[in-house]
Amino acid sequence: MLPVLDHAGIFAFAISGALTAIRREFDVVGIVILAVTTALGGGILRDLVLGDTPPQAFTRWEYLVVALAAAAVAFVAHPLLERLTRALLLFDAAGLGLFCVAGTVKALEHGLAPVAAAALGVTTAVGGGLLRDVITSETPALVRAGSELYALPAVAGALAVALTWEAGAYVPAVGAGAAIAVFALRCLALQRHWRGPQARSSGG
Amino acid sequence: MLPVLDHAGIFAFAISGALTAIRREFDVVGIVILAVTTALGGGILRDLVLGDTPPQAFTRWEYLVVALAAAAVAFVAHPLLERLTRALLLFDAAGLGLFCVAGTVKALEHGLAPVAAAALGVTTAVGGGLLRDVITSETPALVRAGSELYALPAVAGALAVALTWEAGAYVPAVGAGAAIAVFALRCLALQRHWRGPQARSSGG
Amino acid sequence: MLPVLDHAGIFAFAISGALTAIRREFDVVGIVILAVTTALGGGILRDLVLGDTPPQAFTRWEYLVVALAAAAVAFVAHPLLERLTRALLLFDAAGLGLFCVAGTVKALEHGLAPVAAAALGVTTAVGGGLLRDVITSETPALVRAGSELYALPAVAGALAVALTWEAGAYVPAVGAGAAIAVFALRCLALQRHWRGPQARSSGG
Repeated sequence: MLPVLDHAGIFAFAISGALTAIRREFDVVGIVILAVTTALGGGILRDLVLGDTPPQAFTRWEYLVVALAAAAVAFVAHPLLERLTRALLLFDAAGLGLFCVAGTVKALEHGLAPVAAAALGVTTAVGGGLLRDVITSETPALVRAGSELYALPAVAGALAVALTWEAGAYVPAVGAGAAIAVFALRCLALQRHWRGPQARSSGG
Repeated sequence: MLPVLDHAGIFAFAISGALTAIRREFDVVGIVILAVTTALGGGILRDLVLGDTPPQAFTRWEYLVVALAAAAVAFVAHPLLERLTRALLLFDAAGLGLFCVAGTVKALEHGLAPVAAAALGVTTAVGGGLLRDVITSETPALVRAGSELYALPAVAGALAVALTWEAGAYVPAVGAGAAIAVFALRCLALQRHWRGPQARSSGG
Repeated sequence: MLPVLDHAGIFAFAISGALTAIRREFDVVGIVILAVTTALGGGILRDLVLGDTPPQAFTRWEYLVVALAAAAVAFVAHPLLERLTRALLLFDAAGLGLFCVAGTVKALEHGLAPVAAAALGVTTAVGGGLLRDVITSETPALVRAGSELYALPAVAGALAVALTWEAGAYVPAVGAGAAIAVFALRCLALQRHWRGPQARSSGG
């Protein structure tokens, strides 16, 4: 089950990168670069931080293949995909949930303390999208004013996993539950336009 | 004494990141992300280059706590802090001095040659601010036309440390002196609007 | 022969970074930072991914010297260099060819599979320019709409090297041939304005 979700997450993130590139009228090379960076960038950052080199993205060929396949699908089918934005956001939310749990667990296995492991799990989940936005010179959706909650559900899920692990009570079902909770929180945030509080009184 | 300065540097850099986020109307998550990246990014880059993984930022919990505390302070007290910009620049200058010395010393301990160690020390000092500006899609203050000298004092301090080390004459007092000199040079540059020479005759 | 080309590639990339900085009216520090990042950034990324730390850029002093020398040349001679843009593009194309071959070979020596090694070789070749454009908040030339083919020749060359290696038939002459082919393809793309296909029917 997990590998399927894993690949679905990579696929969704790659589609999101490819569509961003297509909207900016990048050519096919730019589309591939942005798709691959969005899908694999978070995991590469995680593995560099853990000293687990070369990163998984370079040692598990199916990761690159899934990202390239998503780029090809986006290149051909983007008029359709634009209409499916809502569906894509669901894929992306699934990727967010899975990547933050997988990243946190890997960091815990490498001996990181709970809070640090959760921070690295969140980095895994949001890093690819951050690189996508940095490369296209856009203010990252991750921090942009008016974005629906994105990182916060991942923070909650990563902390839940890390604290359960610390308590010696972690089982795979906890990870699955956390991933589903992150997914659900993100979907709710999108549907109800939940936003984080701002420090507005800037005129003070 | 050094840990206090170290934490003061992290605190100052985190405040600077958080205030940047608040000015851009990022929400609380964006504020935290930018504060943490600005405060810990330079040290993470340094540790990745040295192969010292996981980076200190992930293994010493007090670093993250100090950065988060600074984000919380900025979130609550930013109208006050905006008026204290001058004081913040002093904190930032202190961080610049300390981080460039600490980064250079760590690189020398890992066996890097003097010039390479100095380059890595400067990277440590300016890396977090560079990431802050890249994430917010601003031309980095580090390179922007019209900025007062920022990297150059750090280069001078890092080279002084590295060459003293190479000469076998390094003692902690040299590091403290270099950090103070970097701090003083940066403050003088701010006060007297010292800028680096440009290659202006571009119409030639 | 190879070291000469290697240094020529670093020199060309550093000139390209320095000229970008001069056009943006950065001061001398910004010019140095952008020159060094453009020239050495791709190799640093490669070495971090391979876990070969500290990266070569920090252990082989002549790399930094060549990059600094190029920055000095650009600072003094930029009115002349602006007129030599065409010549610089040739240098840059030479760097592209050499860096993609050298990066791919190093990745294969570290045991990466052919496609992953080719991907890392391309990253080596295009990474420095990407960092240059990210720091200056420009849409990277690498992906920008309307750029002549840049990454694609490198992909072809890197794959040729990787597949020859996989077949057990790699000899240095193959690498030299691949570097020359990348150089020639890039020059042809510039001369004939070859561009990658776009996914244009975005109104569909």
